[in-house]
Amino acid sequence: MTVSIDFTNMMAGALPAGTGITEAQWNGARAPFAAAHAAVEAQRKALGFLTLPTNEPLLASTLAIAERARGQFDDVLLLGIGGSALGPIALRTALRPLAWNTLSLEARNRYPRLHVLDNVDPSTIATMLARLNLGRTLVLVVSKSGGTVETMAQYLIVREALATTVGESQAKEHLVFVTDPEVGALRRIARAEGITTVDIPQNVGGRFSVLSPVGLLPAALIGIDVRALLAGAADMTQRAASTSPSDNPAGAFAVLQWLADTQHGRHVHALMPYADPLRDLALWFVQLWAESLGKQRADGTHTGPTPLPALGATDQHSQVQLFMEGPADKTVTFVAVNGRTREGAIPSRHADIPELAYLGGHTLGELLDIEQRATAGALAARGRLNATIAIDTVDAWHVGSLMQLFALATAYAGALYGIDAFNQPGVELGKNFAYAMLGKPGSGAARAEWDALPKPDPRWRL
Amino acid sequence: MTVSIDFTNMMAGALPAGTGITEAQWNGARAPFAAAHAAVEAQRKALGFLTLPTNEPLLASTLAIAERARGQFDDVLLLGIGGSALGPIALRTALRPLAWNTLSLEARNRYPRLHVLDNVDPSTIATMLARLNLGRTLVLVVSKSGGTVETMAQYLIVREALATTVGESQAKEHLVFVTDPEVGALRRIARAEGITTVDIPQNVGGRFSVLSPVGLLPAALIGIDVRALLAGAADMTQRAASTSPSDNPAGAFAVLQWLADTQHGRHVHALMPYADPLRDLALWFVQLWAESLGKQRADGTHTGPTPLPALGATDQHSQVQLFMEGPADKTVTFVAVNGRTREGAIPSRHADIPELAYLGGHTLGELLDIEQRATAGALAARGRLNATIAIDTVDAWHVGSLMQLFALATAYAGALYGIDAFNQPGVELGKNFAYAMLGKPGSGAARAEWDALPKPDPRWRL
Repeated sequence: MTVSIDFTNMMAGALPAGTGITEAQWNGARAPFAAAHAAVEAQRKALGFLTLPTNEPLLASTLAIAERARGQFDDVLLLGIGGSALGPIALRTALRPLAWNTLSLEARNRYPRLHVLDNVDPSTIATMLARLNLGRTLVLVVSKSGGTVETMAQYLIVREALATTVGESQAKEHLVFVTDPEVGALRRIARAEGITTVDIPQNVGGRFSVLSPVGLLPAALIGIDVRALLAGAADMTQRAASTSPSDNPAGAFAVLQWLADTQHGRHVHALMPYADPLRDLALWFVQLWAESLGKQRADGTHTGPTPLPALGATDQHSQVQLFMEGPADKTVTFVAVNGRTREGAIPSRHADIPELAYLGGHTLGELLDIEQRATAGALAARGRLNATIAIDTVDAWHVGSLMQLFALATAYAGALYGIDAFNQPGVELGKNFAYAMLGKPGSGAARAEWDALPKPDPRWRL
Repeated sequence: MTVSIDFTNMMAGALPAGTGITEAQWNGARAPFAAAHAAVEAQRKALGFLTLPTNEPLLASTLAIAERARGQFDDVLLLGIGGSALGPIALRTALRPLAWNTLSLEARNRYPRLHVLDNVDPSTIATMLARLNLGRTLVLVVSKSGGTVETMAQYLIVREALATTVGESQAKEHLVFVTDPEVGALRRIARAEGITTVDIPQNVGGRFSVLSPVGLLPAALIGIDVRALLAGAADMTQRAASTSPSDNPAGAFAVLQWLADTQHGRHVHALMPYADPLRDLALWFVQLWAESLGKQRADGTHTGPTPLPALGATDQHSQVQLFMEGPADKTVTFVAVNGRTREGAIPSRHADIPELAYLGGHTLGELLDIEQRATAGALAARGRLNATIAIDTVDAWHVGSLMQLFALATAYAGALYGIDAFNQPGVELGKNFAYAMLGKPGSGAARAEWDALPKPDPRWRL
């Protein structure tokens, strides 16, 4: 069981002259990386995600709730947005189908389905409530701050629907809150009404919370092996003890993307798994990389690479033309899966038709792997920097390890870029404008600022 | 019924000093746009997508096939990738839930479910075949060239499964091919075996094919109003008769993105609908914009903006931090929906808790609209260029109109950037490398080139 990274195609030696990271640049990054590593270690207490893989008490309290719910529900409905939704969705997409396929029919029926409402579109919520039997549904309300406007709005609607269906007194048996241990509206409601809650540790930020109860509780409920998930993450955390990017996969990833961005103008960082189950992992990564690194520095300069989600082989027919021939401003990180070369045998048929004849006897797994290597090679031949992370198989251990790799890399990259990777001050202005329009008490200043903005100009409308 | 675009926030007047497109730049683009418009009109015969909205014979042959299938199938399985999948997926996500909600229970049962296999991951195909009752499934095999390797591999596997389930002689009753009228492997098989086919006109490229049978046939099968879809597209095509970007919404979009990219360094173009049903429209747009505009020019220079898919309000908790504070290298185009302000009433509850009390009495539709305007205003206040396309409601007419807007804009943008928007030469190298590894006859030259590539360097692996 391992996660490897091959970055030959990021380096000058494998690319056309004048492109790629030089050995001198790589070696020159050793000192900045050691400093970044030290900075992350120094913040260990503030960075709760580092110890989530070995936080046994938190795991125990999460599993206890999952165990108590066992067999009582057909559906789990998660209300959350951003970090409260992207992690659970990524875990479900990656691990649910596998868990599902390897289970007996009887076991399948033991685990409910997971639905995630990650937006406030009225048509989605109406359709969801029409589909679900709320009498057999467990509702997880997930918000670190405990007051996220979208999640509160969802909660008010779903709570009302629950009260209508199962009665006000029974409603709380269908609710679990996942939130800050002390503060916020959800915590207040939970205390007042005796609703089951599980803590998101105070030192774990939303986008770093997938291995906290935010991800673990829904994962455990639908039958994902959360102990294996944490073991994989613990393994990656251990490998990240090294202060050398040559021995620390998360460090290597961070240093490579940082060098590619700042020394070679590769501002767009695509993550392209060649595996359907890892589709939504790319969207989870997008939040991590975008929200952590997209920052205004104290001196007023702006920084932050643009993460781009992709999927192989599918995006060979969508984005790869741009990656190959567009501006040389991108890196592509593939995620390859080693252990599926014998899966999906392609039958022989139409021996007389050249477009089909050569495929018989191959497998889909082989085809995917070959396409990944072919795309990587073609990009390199055109001076397009790329790296390949390889896992043995898409299982809980490897997904946990991968996720911890990216979380750690984000923390290192924050230090390398010289910004705070753990806040998101840029979203406040829009939030405050919305509060002002909604008439939230205390939003008068934002209202004044909003009213002073230029109005739509009829010349620029058609 | 209308589609409007407001681009006040792209223009210098509404943005902090020194940012935004000036009136002089806008007016200066009139002549280049008129030339681009003329270039597109001159290619009218080669650009089949321009006449798809009014191609009655093609619609009739598509509807005839859908009509013949009515009531016979519980599921439709579409095999396709790239342009053969992104359009059908976007239509399903946008229009199926609505169609669904407004139908009687009896009518719902008349329409099958649509599944799209857009990749060759063996785990996905295995799960899909295990779930479907092939005896009640119609399989659409969609490929313009008729020989796309991923689609051929899927076909061989599904064809074998069909033969096993329904028998070799009955299998063809479960198959419809959507492909080129003359050439390709699918056409050959269809002729030899008498399989029903419907044409993709020769002058319609894959990524411009959503309003051809590629999108229309699956849409009609699942109960989407394809006549309304085409009527919306026809309306946009008519508005695009104007050679002034001030009267032609597709022209305005193309000119704005082109000016923002080439004059203001805004190389990343995000499309951010505030509507769950339009989620996958953004992915369809990504292919259109990336594959059409990401090109190497004859002089060796590289061009092409990077399209970025986003979703409001969800991405306010993921990508918006980067849009606000990261490098000033992006535009954001919102899609707003006007007609839902009374949908999703939020009940009053917890009057004592400030985070919830102010929400009661509002609606989710209102909340989404307010968040969109707040985000647009906040971006503008920070000098981040953005525009808002507004539609009345998410229905077939408006989706057809929107899709034709983006297809037309892509054609114009190709002319403005001075590249061929209708080819994709950059994907050939990777394809040929894959053919070589798979042993496809005639791929010897690619094999030699592949073998000559630098090998993985163990120094750059961990």
